[in-house]
Amino acid sequence: MAKIAVMGYGTVGSGVVEVLRENGDLIAERCGQTIEVKKVLDLRDFPGDPVQEIVVHDINEIVNDDEISVVCETMGGVGIATKFVSMCLEAGKSVVTSNKAMVAANGTKLLQLAQKNNVRFLFEASVGGGIPIIRNLRTCLTADHIQKIFGIVNGTTNYMLTKMYDEGADYAAVLKEAQDKGFAEADPSEDVEGWDACRKLAILSSIVSGKFVNFENIHTEGITKVTPEDMAYAKEMGCMIRLVGQSVIQEDQIHAMVAPMMFDQEHALSGVNMEFNAIFLTSDMLGDTMFYGQGAGKLPTASAVVSDVIEAVVSPGAVKRSVWTQEEMPVADFGAENRRFFARVSGDEALADELGTVLGSLKVLRAPRIAGEFGIVTGKLAEETMAACVANHPEIISVIRMAD
Amino acid sequence: MAKIAVMGYGTVGSGVVEVLRENGDLIAERCGQTIEVKKVLDLRDFPGDPVQEIVVHDINEIVNDDEISVVCETMGGVGIATKFVSMCLEAGKSVVTSNKAMVAANGTKLLQLAQKNNVRFLFEASVGGGIPIIRNLRTCLTADHIQKIFGIVNGTTNYMLTKMYDEGADYAAVLKEAQDKGFAEADPSEDVEGWDACRKLAILSSIVSGKFVNFENIHTEGITKVTPEDMAYAKEMGCMIRLVGQSVIQEDQIHAMVAPMMFDQEHALSGVNMEFNAIFLTSDMLGDTMFYGQGAGKLPTASAVVSDVIEAVVSPGAVKRSVWTQEEMPVADFGAENRRFFARVSGDEALADELGTVLGSLKVLRAPRIAGEFGIVTGKLAEETMAACVANHPEIISVIRMAD
Repeated sequence: MAKIAVMGYGTVGSGVVEVLRENGDLIAERCGQTIEVKKVLDLRDFPGDPVQEIVVHDINEIVNDDEISVVCETMGGVGIATKFVSMCLEAGKSVVTSNKAMVAANGTKLLQLAQKNNVRFLFEASVGGGIPIIRNLRTCLTADHIQKIFGIVNGTTNYMLTKMYDEGADYAAVLKEAQDKGFAEADPSEDVEGWDACRKLAILSSIVSGKFVNFENIHTEGITKVTPEDMAYAKEMGCMIRLVGQSVIQEDQIHAMVAPMMFDQEHALSGVNMEFNAIFLTSDMLGDTMFYGQGAGKLPTASAVVSDVIEAVVSPGAVKRSVWTQEEMPVADFGAENRRFFARVSGDEALADELGTVLGSLKVLRAPRIAGEFGIVTGKLAEETMAACVANHPEIISVIRMAD
Repeated sequence: MAKIAVMGYGTVGSGVVEVLRENGDLIAERCGQTIEVKKVLDLRDFPGDPVQEIVVHDINEIVNDDEISVVCETMGGVGIATKFVSMCLEAGKSVVTSNKAMVAANGTKLLQLAQKNNVRFLFEASVGGGIPIIRNLRTCLTADHIQKIFGIVNGTTNYMLTKMYDEGADYAAVLKEAQDKGFAEADPSEDVEGWDACRKLAILSSIVSGKFVNFENIHTEGITKVTPEDMAYAKEMGCMIRLVGQSVIQEDQIHAMVAPMMFDQEHALSGVNMEFNAIFLTSDMLGDTMFYGQGAGKLPTASAVVSDVIEAVVSPGAVKRSVWTQEEMPVADFGAENRRFFARVSGDEALADELGTVLGSLKVLRAPRIAGEFGIVTGKLAEETMAACVANHPEIISVIRMAD
């Protein structure tokens, strides 16, 4: 029998206990042994809850318990979580986490620590909730160079943008609705500003490149400026607008960004609606693949944590190669990135000629016929060229990047 | 260094050699050793080809070569392939195959043989080409009971139905086009009659249920009767029509079928166009997940074969549990399956009342206003009820099942 501990008995932590209880027989068969939750660490007590007898309040009760071989960190946050996880790894316990903030900030250090102590540090649930994307990158797509990641990795913003696109609702209204339904936090910044997606993209990029990609170097924009008018233009162009994390992986650098992007309705990602997530990969031999599923939620995320627990129980020793090394992967200068842009411009179309002299040839969009404005689609331009034009032309109301 | 052999130097076999050559460094890093193709078995010679020096014509040259630890079977067919694979397994070599016909027919026996000889028998490339669906089922979704498989697993028919849907083209025209482009064989029966999809569904169902599902027990219909008129009705209803393999897995039986089905344009599978494949899974904790990619093609399929070669090199010994056992999983009586049906009916709508007395309440569809006919959508009915009605009512021109 394998004995484990759960640190943090919130949504995900209680889900882990539930998955292990509900599917215990199946998991025992796959592990070759039963898995028992021996201790749950939380500041609170849970009278009446099945775990009430095993709740502890002191991390040392886990660290010093030699029977416990695997610890699930489902507390969230960076500082205390990193400290507790480090203590567990140093005590020779494998650690499994759903905490993307901790992995993005301190994953490199924790991976090294796990190697040093001959245990596992696994974090399937930190990206894409229940989608087994990390395990696929580590163990399935092994014959390929992955060249590009293009993913919807934040369910809150995807829910909001789906509503805005389908219903023509505005940002404030869908945010309120998302908050009322529990899809968005009272302080939604982490999601709507793109920071959550940025951390997840950094983790995926680190795995694919094998080197540490610092999330702080990834240009990140949220969805707060996206309007129903942008959606109307997108529809006329046969496009979707979604918050996308994109990373093009080269030998010596990556090109990465998180921003709302327009892409064709024919793209496989266009079927990724509401709170669902999907990661679209391009690789040299396999071509395009996509992994789709619930990016959040108690049981999907808990299921991903438990799949890592199973791996840590079945293969407890350190793997030959760290998932990524301490070496930092440079992120290419964002200003020099070339792509096409959509922009809404206030004024009459005579202005298009003037913008054309700065931006090169433009496609001018009349539909959806909003009074006093028009749309443009540029050819491939450097980000800094577009940014300078926006700074000099207050007539440009909004800009959304076009996917390749 | 690991030495391997390739049996069958056709499209997939030559792709395997190419992937191993092109991505040799990457693969060596992931394996911890280089992989060398020592021998290629084929009836032909390949003068001028990089493999010309290592081509052999006698299976015993591989079977009796103790240096060869892994053999890729990429010949196709059932009889000879099964014989050669058995010889390799008995000689203590792991075998990797892309051959779904052999796996569906003899996989149970070959899995047992591999267990007995303490080697691996892997067949990732037999379903979904480059989509790592089998590895996901075996190693990623380990904390879940998978309850339902709903998949587009044949690229030829998906290409044809996409064309019929998008362009209103008829079956014969798109078949000719698919043949001209190399997406369909000169004798297309294996694809268009659904047999290829049936074998793949049987393999997936066997893995999920852990017992042998005999493809011969799965009700299978192809796409040869699908018409532009069916597509027109589907569009009016906001639906797609695709060839789907569906399997609902219960404790003691499965409900399985391959047939063209109508499903909502909002479904995640609706973005699976042209020659792409996708497998949509429903499981108890993760909820819905989908795996999408190129279902065929030289390099995607070869990449899947090579990912299995890597697994066989890294973990050569038999696994604890066979992927599925010799016990046969019953397939539920097809006639008793309940679902909704769409049908085109020739005549005027007075006939709808008569059909309603046999089939229960019907939704009558007037659009797309085809002269002399109308459409109906039934409530949930047994297959045998619908079949009897069709037999008794020659006015029913066509029937397509509705997905749940």
